Amino acid sequence: MSQNRLLLKRDIKEKKELVNIEMDRYLPRKDEYPKQIHKAIRHTLFAGGKRLRPYLMIHTYRLFANDIRKILPVAGALEMLHTYTLIHDDLPEIDNDEYRRGKKSCHAVYGSDIALLAGDSLLVFAIELINSAEIEDKLKIQLIRELCEATGHRGLIAGQLVDIESEGKKVNEKVLKYIHTNKTGRLINLAIRFGCLLSEASEPETNNMKVFGDKIGLAFQIMDDILDIEGDKEILGKSIGKDNQSQKATYPAMNGLEKSRQKAENLIEEARQRLEKYGEKGLYLDLLANFILTRKY
Amino acid sequence: MSQNRLLLKRDIKEKKELVNIEMDRYLPRKDEYPKQIHKAIRHTLFAGGKRLRPYLMIHTYRLFANDIRKILPVAGALEMLHTYTLIHDDLPEIDNDEYRRGKKSCHAVYGSDIALLAGDSLLVFAIELINSAEIEDKLKIQLIRELCEATGHRGLIAGQLVDIESEGKKVNEKVLKYIHTNKTGRLINLAIRFGCLLSEASEPETNNMKVFGDKIGLAFQIMDDILDIEGDKEILGKSIGKDNQSQKATYPAMNGLEKSRQKAENLIEEARQRLEKYGEKGLYLDLLANFILTRKY
Repeated sequence: MSQNRLLLKRDIKEKKELVNIEMDRYLPRKDEYPKQIHKAIRHTLFAGGKRLRPYLMIHTYRLFANDIRKILPVAGALEMLHTYTLIHDDLPEIDNDEYRRGKKSCHAVYGSDIALLAGDSLLVFAIELINSAEIEDKLKIQLIRELCEATGHRGLIAGQLVDIESEGKKVNEKVLKYIHTNKTGRLINLAIRFGCLLSEASEPETNNMKVFGDKIGLAFQIMDDILDIEGDKEILGKSIGKDNQSQKATYPAMNGLEKSRQKAENLIEEARQRLEKYGEKGLYLDLLANFILTRKY
Repeated sequence: MSQNRLLLKRDIKEKKELVNIEMDRYLPRKDEYPKQIHKAIRHTLFAGGKRLRPYLMIHTYRLFANDIRKILPVAGALEMLHTYTLIHDDLPEIDNDEYRRGKKSCHAVYGSDIALLAGDSLLVFAIELINSAEIEDKLKIQLIRELCEATGHRGLIAGQLVDIESEGKKVNEKVLKYIHTNKTGRLINLAIRFGCLLSEASEPETNNMKVFGDKIGLAFQIMDDILDIEGDKEILGKSIGKDNQSQKATYPAMNGLEKSRQKAENLIEEARQRLEKYGEKGLYLDLLANFILTRKY
Protein backbone atom coordinates (compact mmCIF):
# COMPACT_ATOMS: atom_id res chain seq x y z
CA MET A 1 0.00 0.00 0.00
CA SER A 2 1.43 3.36 -1.00
CA GLN A 3 2.06 6.06 1.58
CA ASN A 4 -0.79 8.18 0.24
CA ARG A 5 -3.22 5.32 0.43
CA LEU A 6 -2.17 4.68 4.00
CA LEU A 7 -2.65 8.36 4.82
CA LEU A 8 -6.15 8.33 3.35
CA LYS A 9 -7.11 5.10 5.06
CA ARG A 10 -6.02 6.44 8.43
CA ASP A 11 -7.87 9.71 7.94
CA ILE A 12 -11.07 8.00 6.77
CA LYS A 13 -10.92 5.85 9.88
CA GLU A 14 -10.39 8.86 12.11
CA LYS A 15 -13.27 10.88 10.65
CA LYS A 16 -15.51 7.82 10.63
CA GLU A 17 -14.89 7.43 14.36
CA LEU A 18 -15.88 11.04 14.98
CA VAL A 19 -19.09 10.68 12.99
CA ASN A 20 -19.93 7.36 14.62
CA ILE A 21 -19.47 8.82 18.09
CA GLU A 22 -21.75 11.73 17.15
CA MET A 23 -24.50 9.44 15.83
CA ASP A 24 -24.16 7.04 18.72
CA ARG A 25 -24.46 9.88 21.20
CA TYR A 26 -27.64 11.09 19.53
CA LEU A 27 -29.41 7.76 19.00
CA PRO A 28 -31.36 6.03 21.76
CA ARG A 29 -29.71 3.00 23.32
CA LYS A 30 -30.64 -0.19 21.53
CA ASP A 31 -32.50 -1.47 24.57
CA GLU A 32 -34.76 1.58 24.75
CA TYR A 33 -38.45 0.75 24.40
CA PRO A 34 -39.63 -0.15 21.78
CA LYS A 35 -36.42 -2.14 21.37
CA GLN A 36 -36.83 -3.57 17.89
CA ILE A 37 -36.77 -0.22 16.14
CA HIS A 38 -33.65 0.94 17.91
CA LYS A 39 -31.86 -2.33 17.29
CA ALA A 40 -32.88 -2.24 13.61
CA ILE A 41 -31.63 1.34 13.17
CA ARG A 42 -28.28 0.56 14.72
CA HIS A 43 -27.96 -2.69 12.79
CA THR A 44 -27.63 -1.00 9.40
CA LEU A 45 -26.16 2.30 10.55
CA PHE A 46 -23.23 0.64 12.31
CA ALA A 47 -22.83 -2.31 9.94
CA GLY A 48 -19.84 -0.62 8.35
CA GLY A 49 -19.56 1.84 5.52
CA LYS A 50 -16.85 4.39 4.94
CA ARG A 51 -18.95 7.44 5.87
CA LEU A 52 -18.09 8.85 2.46
CA ARG A 53 -20.69 11.63 2.54
CA PRO A 54 -19.67 12.96 5.97
CA TYR A 55 -16.06 12.64 4.86
CA LEU A 56 -16.67 14.78 1.79
CA MET A 57 -18.54 17.34 3.86
CA ILE A 58 -15.84 17.57 6.52
CA HIS A 59 -13.00 18.00 4.04
CA THR A 60 -14.90 20.50 1.91
CA TYR A 61 -15.55 22.45 5.10
CA ARG A 62 -11.86 22.34 5.96
CA LEU A 63 -10.93 24.01 2.69
CA PHE A 64 -12.53 27.20 4.01
CA ALA A 65 -12.80 26.87 7.81
CA ASN A 66 -11.24 25.09 10.74
CA ASP A 67 -13.00 23.76 13.82
CA ILE A 68 -14.99 20.74 12.68
CA ARG A 69 -16.64 19.93 16.01
CA LYS A 70 -19.71 22.05 15.48
CA ILE A 71 -20.44 20.49 12.09
CA LEU A 72 -20.31 16.85 13.23
CA PRO A 73 -24.09 16.63 13.89
CA VAL A 74 -24.68 17.66 10.27
CA ALA A 75 -22.15 15.07 9.11
CA GLY A 76 -24.08 12.46 11.11
CA ALA A 77 -27.33 13.64 9.55
CA LEU A 78 -25.93 12.98 6.06
CA GLU A 79 -24.99 9.44 7.00
CA MET A 80 -28.41 8.78 8.54
CA LEU A 81 -30.11 10.12 5.44
CA HIS A 82 -27.94 7.87 3.29
CA THR A 83 -28.72 4.85 5.49
CA TYR A 84 -32.46 5.59 5.29
CA THR A 85 -32.22 5.30 1.50
CA LEU A 86 -30.26 2.05 1.77
CA ILE A 87 -32.82 0.44 4.08
CA HIS A 88 -35.80 1.43 1.94
CA ASP A 89 -34.03 0.52 -1.33
CA ASP A 90 -33.20 -2.94 0.01
CA LEU A 91 -36.84 -3.70 0.88
CA PRO A 92 -38.52 -6.53 -1.04
CA GLU A 93 -40.75 -4.13 -2.95
CA ILE A 94 -37.79 -2.24 -4.35
CA ASP A 95 -34.42 -3.98 -4.80
CA ASN A 96 -35.11 -6.97 -2.54
CA ASP A 97 -31.51 -7.12 -1.44
CA GLU A 98 -30.58 -9.48 1.39
CA TYR A 99 -27.12 -8.08 2.01
CA ARG A 100 -25.81 -4.64 2.79
CA ARG A 101 -22.44 -3.49 4.03
CA GLY A 102 -21.35 -7.12 4.28
CA LYS A 103 -24.14 -8.08 6.65
CA LYS A 104 -27.74 -9.17 6.32
CA SER A 105 -29.84 -6.18 5.33
CA CYS A 106 -32.22 -4.59 7.82
CA HIS A 107 -35.40 -6.30 6.62
CA ALA A 108 -33.64 -9.66 6.30
CA VAL A 109 -32.98 -9.57 10.04
CA TYR A 110 -35.88 -7.55 11.48
CA GLY A 111 -38.64 -8.04 8.91
CA SER A 112 -39.97 -5.62 6.31
CA ASP A 113 -42.36 -3.84 8.67
CA ILE A 114 -39.62 -2.91 11.15
CA ALA A 115 -37.19 -2.05 8.35
CA LEU A 116 -39.73 0.28 6.78
CA LEU A 117 -40.17 2.09 10.09
CA ALA A 118 -36.43 2.09 10.77
CA GLY A 119 -35.92 3.86 7.44
CA ASP A 120 -38.62 6.39 8.23
CA SER A 121 -37.01 7.01 11.63
CA LEU A 122 -33.62 7.67 10.11
CA LEU A 123 -35.06 10.31 7.80
CA VAL A 124 -36.60 12.00 10.82
CA PHE A 125 -33.37 11.60 12.82
CA ALA A 126 -31.38 13.27 10.06
CA ILE A 127 -33.48 16.39 10.35
CA GLU A 128 -33.36 16.25 14.14
CA LEU A 129 -29.58 16.06 14.08
CA ILE A 130 -29.32 19.18 11.94
CA ASN A 131 -31.70 20.87 14.35
CA SER A 132 -29.48 19.89 17.25
CA ALA A 133 -26.35 21.49 15.76
CA GLU A 134 -25.03 24.66 17.34
CA ILE A 135 -25.44 26.81 14.27
CA GLU A 136 -27.68 29.77 13.49
CA ASP A 137 -31.40 29.22 12.88
CA LYS A 138 -31.14 30.73 9.44
CA LEU A 139 -28.45 28.26 8.45
CA LYS A 140 -30.41 25.34 9.94
CA ILE A 141 -33.42 26.30 7.85
CA GLN A 142 -31.30 26.43 4.73
CA LEU A 143 -29.68 23.06 5.42
CA ILE A 144 -33.07 21.46 6.09
CA ARG A 145 -34.52 23.03 2.95
CA GLU A 146 -31.70 21.73 0.80
CA LEU A 147 -31.81 18.33 2.45
CA CYS A 148 -35.52 18.12 1.61
CA GLU A 149 -34.91 19.18 -1.99
CA ALA A 150 -32.18 16.60 -2.43
CA THR A 151 -34.24 13.87 -0.80
CA GLY A 152 -37.72 14.52 -2.13
CA HIS A 153 -39.72 14.02 -5.28
CA ARG A 154 -37.23 15.91 -7.46
CA GLY A 155 -34.18 14.32 -5.86
CA LEU A 156 -33.39 10.88 -4.48
CA ILE A 157 -36.98 9.72 -4.68
CA ALA A 158 -37.28 10.75 -8.34
CA GLY A 159 -34.02 8.95 -9.14
CA GLN A 160 -35.20 5.82 -7.35
CA LEU A 161 -38.55 5.94 -9.11
CA VAL A 162 -37.11 6.29 -12.60
CA ASP A 163 -34.65 3.51 -11.76
CA ILE A 164 -37.58 1.23 -10.85
CA GLU A 165 -39.49 2.21 -13.97
CA SER A 166 -36.45 1.55 -16.18
CA GLU A 167 -35.92 -1.98 -14.93
CA GLY A 168 -35.91 -4.50 -17.76
CA LYS A 169 -36.28 -1.69 -20.31
CA LYS A 170 -33.71 -0.29 -22.70
CA VAL A 171 -33.02 3.25 -21.50
CA ASN A 172 -31.19 6.01 -23.28
CA GLU A 173 -28.22 8.01 -22.01
CA LYS A 174 -30.46 10.85 -20.85
CA VAL A 175 -32.55 8.66 -18.57
CA LEU A 176 -29.43 6.98 -17.24
CA LYS A 177 -27.94 10.36 -16.41
CA TYR A 178 -31.16 11.38 -14.67
CA ILE A 179 -31.00 8.29 -12.47
CA HIS A 180 -27.31 8.76 -11.66
CA THR A 181 -27.63 12.45 -10.93
CA ASN A 182 -30.56 11.95 -8.62
CA LYS A 183 -29.64 8.69 -6.95
CA THR A 184 -25.94 8.68 -6.18
CA GLY A 185 -24.96 12.15 -7.27
CA ARG A 186 -27.51 13.97 -5.19
CA LEU A 187 -26.20 13.09 -1.74
CA ILE A 188 -22.57 13.46 -2.76
CA ASN A 189 -23.36 16.95 -3.99
CA LEU A 190 -25.38 17.69 -0.88
CA ALA A 191 -22.40 16.73 1.28
CA ILE A 192 -20.12 19.10 -0.59
CA ARG A 193 -22.76 21.82 -0.60
CA PHE A 194 -23.21 21.48 3.18
CA GLY A 195 -19.45 21.78 3.61
CA CYS A 196 -19.54 25.05 1.66
CA LEU A 197 -22.59 26.44 3.47
CA LEU A 198 -21.24 25.60 6.92
CA SER A 199 -17.85 27.17 6.18
CA GLU A 200 -19.45 30.20 4.50
CA ALA A 201 -17.49 29.61 1.32
CA SER A 202 -17.82 32.30 -1.36
CA GLU A 203 -20.06 31.73 -4.37
CA PRO A 204 -17.20 31.08 -6.82
CA GLU A 205 -15.68 28.55 -4.42
CA THR A 206 -19.07 26.90 -3.92
CA ASN A 207 -19.52 26.64 -7.70
CA ASN A 208 -16.06 25.24 -8.13
CA MET A 209 -16.73 22.56 -5.53
CA LYS A 210 -20.10 21.79 -7.12
CA VAL A 211 -18.32 20.85 -10.33
CA PHE A 212 -15.93 18.70 -8.30
CA GLY A 213 -18.98 17.00 -6.76
CA ASP A 214 -20.74 16.42 -10.08
CA LYS A 215 -17.68 14.76 -11.50
CA ILE A 216 -16.78 12.49 -8.60
CA GLY A 217 -20.47 11.60 -8.14
CA LEU A 218 -20.78 10.31 -11.68
CA ALA A 219 -17.39 8.58 -11.51
CA PHE A 220 -18.41 6.94 -8.25
CA GLN A 221 -21.60 5.59 -9.82
CA ILE A 222 -19.80 4.27 -12.89
CA MET A 223 -17.17 2.55 -10.75
CA ASP A 224 -19.91 1.16 -8.52
CA ASP A 225 -21.59 -0.39 -11.54
CA ILE A 226 -18.27 -1.75 -12.80
CA LEU A 227 -17.53 -3.23 -9.37
CA ASP A 228 -20.99 -4.72 -9.37
CA ILE A 229 -20.12 -6.66 -12.51
CA GLU A 230 -16.52 -7.52 -11.64
CA GLY A 231 -16.74 -7.47 -7.91
CA ASP A 232 -16.54 -10.12 -5.33
CA LYS A 233 -19.35 -10.49 -2.84
CA GLU A 234 -17.10 -10.81 0.16
CA ILE A 235 -15.24 -7.62 -0.63
CA LEU A 236 -18.15 -5.40 -1.62
CA GLY A 237 -20.53 -6.72 0.99
CA LYS A 238 -23.64 -6.66 -1.10
CA SER A 239 -25.22 -9.14 -3.45
CA ILE A 240 -23.12 -9.12 -6.60
CA GLY A 241 -24.40 -8.90 -10.13
CA LYS A 242 -27.82 -8.05 -8.75
CA ASP A 243 -28.13 -4.81 -10.68
CA ASN A 244 -27.06 -6.66 -13.80
CA GLN A 245 -29.28 -9.70 -13.37
CA SER A 246 -32.38 -7.61 -13.04
CA GLN A 247 -31.33 -5.58 -16.08
CA LYS A 248 -30.95 -2.31 -14.29
CA ALA A 249 -29.83 0.67 -16.26
CA THR A 250 -26.08 1.06 -15.74
CA TYR A 251 -23.29 2.85 -17.54
CA PRO A 252 -21.18 -0.25 -18.23
CA ALA A 253 -24.23 -2.18 -19.45
CA MET A 254 -24.78 0.57 -21.99
CA ASN A 255 -21.22 1.43 -22.96
CA GLY A 256 -19.09 -1.57 -22.04
CA LEU A 257 -16.49 -1.94 -19.30
CA GLU A 258 -13.53 -0.43 -21.14
CA LYS A 259 -15.26 2.76 -22.20
CA SER A 260 -16.86 3.12 -18.78
CA ARG A 261 -13.56 2.90 -16.97
CA GLN A 262 -12.05 5.46 -19.31
CA LYS A 263 -14.98 7.79 -18.66
CA ALA A 264 -14.53 7.46 -14.89
CA GLU A 265 -10.81 8.17 -15.21
CA ASN A 266 -11.46 11.32 -17.22
CA LEU A 267 -14.04 12.52 -14.71
CA ILE A 268 -11.68 12.02 -11.79
CA GLU A 269 -8.88 13.80 -13.65
CA GLU A 270 -11.19 16.78 -14.24
CA ALA A 271 -12.37 16.72 -10.64
CA ARG A 272 -8.83 16.75 -9.29
CA GLN A 273 -8.01 19.81 -11.37
CA ARG A 274 -10.66 21.66 -9.40
CA LEU A 275 -8.67 21.06 -6.23
CA GLU A 276 -5.32 22.35 -7.44
CA LYS A 277 -5.97 25.89 -6.25
CA TYR A 278 -6.34 24.71 -2.65
CA GLY A 279 -2.85 23.19 -2.50
CA GLU A 280 -2.13 21.19 0.65
CA LYS A 281 -5.66 21.78 1.99
CA GLY A 282 -7.16 19.75 -0.82
CA LEU A 283 -4.94 16.73 -0.18
CA TYR A 284 -7.54 14.38 1.30
CA LEU A 285 -10.21 15.23 -1.25
CA ASP A 286 -7.63 14.58 -3.95
CA LEU A 287 -6.68 11.24 -2.43
CA LEU A 288 -10.35 10.34 -2.10
CA ALA A 289 -11.09 11.21 -5.73
CA ASN A 290 -8.23 8.99 -6.79
CA PHE A 291 -9.41 6.23 -4.47
CA ILE A 292 -12.77 6.11 -6.29
CA LEU A 293 -10.94 4.70 -9.33
CA THR A 294 -9.00 2.06 -7.48
CA ARG A 295 -11.31 0.94 -4.73
CA LYS A 296 -12.11 -2.75 -4.61
CA TYR A 297 -15.07 -2.29 -2.25
CA MET B 1 -79.62 17.41 10.68
CA SER B 2 -79.52 19.89 13.55
CA GLN B 3 -78.48 23.46 12.93
CA ASN B 4 -75.23 22.99 14.80
CA ARG B 5 -74.32 19.97 12.77
CA LEU B 6 -75.02 21.91 9.60
CA LEU B 7 -72.84 24.74 10.84
CA LEU B 8 -69.97 22.36 11.57
CA LYS B 9 -70.34 20.56 8.27
CA ARG B 10 -70.20 23.80 6.33
CA ASP B 11 -67.20 25.05 8.26
CA ILE B 12 -65.30 21.78 7.87
CA LYS B 13 -65.94 21.98 4.14
CA GLU B 14 -64.74 25.56 3.98
CA LYS B 15 -61.51 24.93 5.89
CA LYS B 16 -60.90 21.75 3.95
CA GLU B 17 -61.08 23.74 0.72
CA LEU B 18 -58.52 26.22 2.02
CA VAL B 19 -56.14 23.46 3.05
CA ASN B 20 -56.64 21.58 -0.23
CA ILE B 21 -55.88 24.69 -2.26
CA GLU B 22 -52.73 25.25 -0.24
CA MET B 23 -51.52 21.67 -0.74
CA ASP B 24 -52.46 21.67 -4.41
CA ARG B 25 -50.57 24.88 -4.97
CA TYR B 26 -47.48 23.44 -3.37
CA LEU B 27 -47.47 19.99 -4.95
CA PRO B 28 -46.11 19.36 -8.44
CA ARG B 29 -48.72 18.75 -11.18
CA LYS B 30 -49.58 15.11 -11.52
CA ASP B 31 -48.05 15.01 -15.00
CA GLU B 32 -44.68 16.30 -13.80
CA TYR B 33 -41.85 13.87 -14.48
CA PRO B 34 -41.59 11.29 -12.98
CA LYS B 35 -45.36 11.06 -13.24
CA GLN B 36 -46.11 7.97 -11.18
CA ILE B 37 -44.91 9.46 -7.92
CA HIS B 38 -46.93 12.64 -8.33
CA LYS B 39 -50.07 10.76 -9.31
CA ALA B 40 -49.64 8.41 -6.36
CA ILE B 41 -49.18 11.27 -3.89
CA ARG B 42 -52.29 13.05 -5.12
CA HIS B 43 -54.29 9.83 -5.23
CA THR B 44 -54.31 9.36 -1.46
CA LEU B 45 -53.97 12.98 -0.43
CA PHE B 46 -57.05 14.05 -2.36
CA ALA B 47 -59.06 10.85 -1.95
CA GLY B 48 -61.18 12.55 0.69
CA GLY B 49 -60.69 12.90 4.41
CA LYS B 50 -62.04 15.61 6.68
CA ARG B 51 -58.70 17.36 7.23
CA LEU B 52 -59.32 16.92 10.94
CA ARG B 53 -55.78 17.79 12.01
CA PRO B 54 -55.59 21.03 10.00
CA TYR B 55 -59.10 21.84 11.27
CA LEU B 56 -58.02 21.43 14.88
CA MET B 57 -54.94 23.53 14.28
CA ILE B 58 -56.84 26.33 12.58
CA HIS B 59 -59.51 26.59 15.27
CA THR B 60 -57.01 26.36 18.11
CA TYR B 61 -55.12 29.19 16.44
CA ARG B 62 -58.29 31.23 16.19
CA LEU B 63 -58.83 31.06 19.92
CA PHE B 64 -55.82 33.34 20.32
CA ALA B 65 -55.20 35.03 16.96
CA ASN B 66 -56.95 36.03 13.76
CA ASP B 67 -55.52 35.97 10.27
CA ILE B 68 -55.28 32.31 9.31
CA ARG B 69 -53.75 32.77 5.86
CA LYS B 70 -50.15 32.65 7.01
CA ILE B 71 -50.67 29.37 8.89
CA LEU B 72 -52.25 27.45 6.00
CA PRO B 73 -48.94 25.96 4.80
CA VAL B 74 -48.45 24.49 8.27
CA ALA B 75 -52.02 23.13 8.19
CA GLY B 76 -51.20 21.49 4.86
CA ALA B 77 -48.02 20.04 6.34
CA LEU B 78 -50.04 18.31 9.08
CA GLU B 79 -52.33 16.69 6.51
CA MET B 80 -49.38 15.54 4.43
CA LEU B 81 -47.72 14.08 7.47
CA HIS B 82 -50.94 12.27 8.36
CA THR B 83 -51.28 10.95 4.79
CA TYR B 84 -47.69 9.71 4.84
CA THR B 85 -48.55 7.57 7.87
CA LEU B 86 -51.70 6.25 6.17
CA ILE B 87 -49.83 5.20 3.02
CA HIS B 88 -47.07 3.43 4.93
CA ASP B 89 -49.50 1.83 7.39
CA ASP B 90 -51.58 0.43 4.53
CA LEU B 91 -48.58 -1.27 2.90
CA PRO B 92 -48.63 -5.08 2.73
CA GLU B 93 -45.85 -5.39 5.30
CA ILE B 94 -47.81 -3.48 7.90
CA ASP B 95 -51.64 -3.44 7.81
CA ASN B 96 -52.04 -4.67 4.22
CA ASP B 97 -55.16 -2.59 3.73
CA GLU B 98 -56.61 -2.35 0.23
CA TYR B 99 -58.96 0.53 0.95
CA ARG B 100 -58.45 4.01 2.33
CA ARG B 101 -60.75 7.02 2.37
CA GLY B 102 -63.31 5.07 0.32
CA LYS B 103 -60.92 4.37 -2.52
CA LYS B 104 -58.28 1.80 -3.30
CA SER B 105 -55.24 2.48 -1.16
CA CYS B 106 -52.09 3.87 -2.71
CA HIS B 107 -50.19 0.60 -3.06
CA ALA B 108 -53.29 -1.19 -4.38
CA VAL B 109 -53.31 1.18 -7.34
CA TYR B 110 -49.66 2.09 -7.86
CA GLY B 111 -47.80 -0.86 -6.37
CA SER B 112 -45.92 -1.12 -3.09
CA ASP B 113 -42.69 0.34 -4.43
CA ILE B 114 -44.33 3.57 -5.61
CA ALA B 115 -46.48 3.77 -2.47
CA LEU B 116 -43.42 3.45 -0.27
CA LEU B 117 -41.75 6.32 -2.12
CA ALA B 118 -44.96 8.38 -2.15
CA GLY B 119 -45.11 8.07 1.64
CA ASP B 120 -41.47 9.09 1.96
CA SER B 121 -42.13 12.08 -0.31
CA LEU B 122 -45.04 13.27 1.79
CA LEU B 123 -42.93 13.25 4.93
CA VAL B 124 -40.38 15.41 3.12
CA PHE B 125 -43.13 17.63 1.69
CA ALA B 126 -44.53 18.23 5.16
CA ILE B 127 -41.23 19.67 6.30
CA GLU B 128 -40.87 21.69 3.10
CA LEU B 129 -44.31 23.21 3.58
CA ILE B 130 -43.44 24.39 7.07
CA ASN B 131 -40.25 25.82 5.64
CA SER B 132 -42.24 27.68 3.01
CA ALA B 133 -44.50 29.43 5.55
CA GLU B 134 -44.02 33.12 6.14
CA ILE B 135 -43.14 32.83 9.78
CA GLU B 136 -39.95 33.52 11.70
CA ASP B 137 -37.00 31.14 11.39
CA LYS B 138 -37.04 30.49 15.11
CA LEU B 139 -40.64 29.37 14.98
CA LYS B 140 -40.03 27.22 11.90
CA ILE B 141 -37.22 25.44 13.72
CA GLN B 142 -39.47 24.81 16.70
CA LEU B 143 -42.31 23.47 14.52
CA ILE B 144 -39.94 21.19 12.63
CA ARG B 145 -38.39 19.99 15.88
CA GLU B 146 -41.78 19.16 17.37
CA LEU B 147 -42.97 17.55 14.14
CA CYS B 148 -39.89 15.30 14.21
CA GLU B 149 -40.46 14.41 17.85
CA ALA B 150 -44.09 13.53 17.20
CA THR B 151 -43.26 11.53 14.10
CA GLY B 152 -40.08 9.75 15.07
CA HIS B 153 -38.97 6.81 17.12
CA ARG B 154 -40.61 8.08 20.31
CA GLY B 155 -43.83 9.16 18.56
CA LEU B 156 -45.87 7.79 15.68
CA ILE B 157 -43.24 5.24 14.71
CA ALA B 158 -43.03 3.90 18.26
CA GLY B 159 -46.83 3.62 18.41
CA GLN B 160 -46.95 1.80 15.08
CA LEU B 161 -44.18 -0.53 16.14
CA VAL B 162 -45.76 -1.52 19.44
CA ASP B 163 -49.06 -1.96 17.59
CA ILE B 164 -47.38 -4.41 15.18
CA GLU B 165 -45.68 -6.25 18.04
CA SER B 166 -48.97 -6.55 19.93
CA GLU B 167 -50.82 -8.18 17.07
CA GLY B 168 -52.37 -11.48 18.09
CA LYS B 169 -51.15 -11.00 21.66
CA LYS B 170 -53.13 -10.13 24.75
CA VAL B 171 -52.01 -6.68 25.75
CA ASN B 172 -52.62 -4.82 28.96
CA GLU B 173 -54.18 -1.38 29.38
CA LYS B 174 -50.77 0.26 29.67
CA VAL B 175 -49.58 -1.01 26.29
CA LEU B 176 -52.91 -0.09 24.71
CA LYS B 177 -52.59 3.42 26.03
CA TYR B 178 -49.05 3.65 24.72
CA ILE B 179 -50.26 2.71 21.24
CA HIS B 180 -53.19 5.13 21.34
CA THR B 181 -51.16 8.02 22.68
CA ASN B 182 -48.46 7.60 20.09
CA LYS B 183 -50.50 6.58 17.07
CA THR B 184 -53.69 8.63 16.94
CA GLY B 185 -53.14 10.97 19.83
CA ARG B 186 -49.79 12.23 18.75
CA LEU B 187 -50.85 14.05 15.59
CA ILE B 188 -54.02 15.40 17.14
CA ASN B 189 -51.96 16.87 19.93
CA LEU B 190 -49.40 18.17 17.47
CA ALA B 191 -52.16 19.98 15.55
CA ILE B 192 -53.37 21.69 18.72
CA ARG B 193 -49.83 22.44 19.83
CA PHE B 194 -49.05 24.02 16.45
CA GLY B 195 -52.19 26.16 16.75
CA CYS B 196 -50.93 27.40 20.13
CA LEU B 197 -47.35 28.01 18.96
CA LEU B 198 -48.43 29.88 15.84
CA SER B 199 -50.82 32.10 17.77
CA GLU B 200 -48.29 32.66 20.57
CA ALA B 201 -50.75 31.39 23.15
CA SER B 202 -49.63 31.73 26.78
CA GLU B 203 -48.32 28.71 28.66
CA PRO B 204 -51.49 28.19 30.75
CA GLU B 205 -53.64 28.35 27.61
CA THR B 206 -51.31 25.94 25.84
CA ASN B 207 -51.53 23.53 28.77
CA ASN B 208 -55.31 23.83 28.86
CA MET B 209 -55.54 23.01 25.17
CA LYS B 210 -53.13 20.11 25.60
CA VAL B 211 -55.57 18.50 28.01
CA PHE B 212 -58.35 19.12 25.49
CA GLY B 213 -56.22 17.37 22.85
CA ASP B 214 -55.36 14.40 25.07
CA LYS B 215 -59.02 13.79 25.77
CA ILE B 216 -60.42 14.13 22.27
CA GLY B 217 -57.50 12.11 20.89
CA LEU B 218 -58.30 9.16 23.10
CA ALA B 219 -62.05 9.51 22.50
CA PHE B 220 -61.41 9.63 18.75
CA GLN B 221 -59.40 6.42 18.88
CA ILE B 222 -62.01 4.61 20.97
CA MET B 223 -64.81 5.70 18.64
CA ASP B 224 -62.69 4.71 15.65
CA ASP B 225 -62.32 1.22 17.09
CA ILE B 226 -66.06 1.05 17.86
CA LEU B 227 -66.88 2.16 14.32
CA ASP B 228 -64.48 -0.42 13.02
CA ILE B 229 -66.56 -3.11 14.71
CA GLU B 230 -69.98 -1.65 14.00
CA GLY B 231 -69.21 0.30 10.88
CA ASP B 232 -70.23 -0.12 7.36
CA LYS B 233 -67.56 -0.28 4.70
CA GLU B 234 -69.25 2.14 2.36
CA ILE B 235 -69.60 4.78 5.04
CA LEU B 236 -66.18 4.56 6.63
CA GLY B 237 -64.30 3.95 3.42
CA LYS B 238 -61.80 1.49 4.76
CA SER B 239 -61.82 -2.26 5.15
CA ILE B 240 -64.12 -2.96 8.08
CA GLY B 241 -63.42 -5.27 10.95
CA LYS B 242 -59.85 -5.49 9.80
CA ASP B 243 -58.35 -4.40 13.07
CA ASN B 244 -60.57 -6.92 14.80
CA GLN B 245 -59.91 -9.83 12.48
CA SER B 246 -56.21 -9.55 12.91
CA GLN B 247 -56.68 -9.28 16.68
CA LYS B 248 -55.31 -5.82 17.04
CA ALA B 249 -55.22 -4.25 20.44
CA THR B 250 -58.29 -2.01 20.74
CA TYR B 251 -60.20 -0.47 23.60
CA PRO B 252 -63.57 -2.14 22.79
CA ALA B 253 -61.89 -5.52 22.31
CA MET B 254 -60.56 -5.15 25.84
CA ASN B 255 -63.46 -3.48 27.61
CA GLY B 256 -66.55 -4.19 25.52
CA LEU B 257 -68.62 -1.80 23.42
CA GLU B 258 -70.80 -0.39 26.17
CA LYS B 259 -68.02 0.53 28.53
CA SER B 260 -65.98 1.92 25.67
CA ARG B 261 -68.73 4.22 24.50
CA GLN B 262 -69.24 5.46 28.04
CA LYS B 263 -65.52 6.15 28.35
CA ALA B 264 -65.55 8.15 25.11
CA GLU B 265 -68.56 10.16 26.27
CA ASN B 266 -66.85 11.04 29.53
CA LEU B 267 -63.69 12.09 27.74
CA ILE B 268 -65.59 14.36 25.37
CA GLU B 269 -67.52 15.88 28.27
CA GLU B 270 -64.25 16.66 30.04
CA ALA B 271 -62.73 18.01 26.85
CA ARG B 272 -65.64 20.37 26.23
CA GLN B 273 -65.29 21.80 29.73
CA ARG B 274 -61.85 23.00 28.74
CA LEU B 275 -63.42 25.16 26.04
CA GLU B 276 -65.97 26.94 28.23
CA LYS B 277 -63.64 29.81 29.04
CA TYR B 278 -63.35 30.74 25.36
CA GLY B 279 -67.06 31.32 24.88
CA GLU B 280 -68.15 31.89 21.28
CA LYS B 281 -64.59 31.47 20.01
CA GLY B 282 -64.58 27.83 21.06
CA LEU B 283 -67.78 27.00 19.18
CA TYR B 284 -66.33 24.95 16.34
CA LEU B 285 -63.95 23.00 18.54
CA ASP B 286 -66.91 22.25 20.80
CA LEU B 287 -69.02 21.08 17.87
CA LEU B 288 -66.16 18.99 16.60
CA ALA B 289 -65.63 17.34 19.97
CA ASN B 290 -69.30 16.45 20.05
CA PHE B 291 -69.14 15.18 16.49
CA ILE B 292 -66.49 12.63 17.48
CA LEU B 293 -69.17 10.80 19.49
CA THR B 294 -71.80 10.76 16.79
CA ARG B 295 -69.84 10.42 13.57
CA LYS B 296 -70.74 7.51 11.35
CA TYR B 297 -67.62 7.80 9.21
